[in-house]
Amino acid sequence: MREAFHENLRTISDQLVEMTRLASSAMSRATTALLDADVHLAESVIAADKQIDAVREELDHLAVDLLARQQPVATDLRMVVTSMRMSSDLERMGDLARHVAKVARLRYPESAVPPELRATILQMGQVAELIVSKAGSVIAARDLVAAKEIERDDDAMDALHRELFEHLVDGTWQHGTETAVDITLLGRYYERYADHAVSVAARVIYLVTGEWNADIDEDTADDLPL
Amino acid sequence: MREAFHENLRTISDQLVEMTRLASSAMSRATTALLDADVHLAESVIAADKQIDAVREELDHLAVDLLARQQPVATDLRMVVTSMRMSSDLERMGDLARHVAKVARLRYPESAVPPELRATILQMGQVAELIVSKAGSVIAARDLVAAKEIERDDDAMDALHRELFEHLVDGTWQHGTETAVDITLLGRYYERYADHAVSVAARVIYLVTGEWNADIDEDTADDLPL
Repeated sequence: MREAFHENLRTISDQLVEMTRLASSAMSRATTALLDADVHLAESVIAADKQIDAVREELDHLAVDLLARQQPVATDLRMVVTSMRMSSDLERMGDLARHVAKVARLRYPESAVPPELRATILQMGQVAELIVSKAGSVIAARDLVAAKEIERDDDAMDALHRELFEHLVDGTWQHGTETAVDITLLGRYYERYADHAVSVAARVIYLVTGEWNADIDEDTADDLPL
Repeated sequence: MREAFHENLRTISDQLVEMTRLASSAMSRATTALLDADVHLAESVIAADKQIDAVREELDHLAVDLLARQQPVATDLRMVVTSMRMSSDLERMGDLARHVAKVARLRYPESAVPPELRATILQMGQVAELIVSKAGSVIAARDLVAAKEIERDDDAMDALHRELFEHLVDGTWQHGTETAVDITLLGRYYERYADHAVSVAARVIYLVTGEWNADIDEDTADDLPL
């Protein structure tokens, strides 16, 4: 019974790691689609989101099934419940990558990103990729060092987000309101993506140490960088 | 045993209804704070978010405790798991109201909303209030008629959101980039707030009928109204 339980828990953990891979690939390709105005790549990201949703659904079914059949308690129970919360974060990260791809598709054949902001958006994409790949190791290996690093990476994302906003409002903006709207939303998508990765890491830290970072709810609650 | 279980489930349901009340009050006051540039009201909304978070935390602890001690299966299990998902939606709605209040505070003593958009924002606030109060009845009374209405109310919210965006990008915008950024984010906060209410309603429908509205994941996935 307990062996079956741990076998199932390993499957859930593998599915979570698979979700980090899919979410990473989605955001990486969405960023490229955005910067290169590549509508085919954007379409492929939009279509691929169904895959993340499917893994999430499978995982959640397995988790509920596990609760019903094995009736875990204590740490085992906490692990199953936490896994369902992580799957929700990771599914949302997939959605956010899809939103970035949709902006790319909407502005094709133009790029939604003005030349002077390309480097910032590129870096936001890179931090997003880094942060989700670390979230994968955190889940797979309970790597608490990587989990702590993710919080610092999120600070880097926040700084880039602030840079984006400052450029929007410093009085030099020459690209019209439509592009300002695009950049505002894109900034938010990347920032929220990182926030969900932070939340995944915090959940693993909590599982392993029993300590919940009380700052998480406040700090990653997608506040305006204004 | 089963009686204790149902007693606890009633407590959880009451807590969810209480969360809808708090989230409704928060968004209603945040909208007033925004339109009246009332910084004290804005501050009170920001401070009150902790209350929603506290109810959510209590609810989630009770739910996990219930899983551990009573080990529900079938419908009972589904109800507990679904309650935890609803608490997550409602907690997020509180965050979004707080974000609206933060924009109000940031622009004080000005209002962040230009005169010609006041009516649209006011209506978004009204739809938000209506939708969350219906979510409360849906949870309290399993009111499937109200649950269906919420989907239509969300369409009204989407239409208002579209109106907001169209005004931003129709080439007549006179209020500068900073206000455009504010309006872009405000529109998104109201829209996401409604999306989470739709998700709450869909979960109740699923609990009662076993039918999941497959459009939910796509349609309420906060797509740009562009």
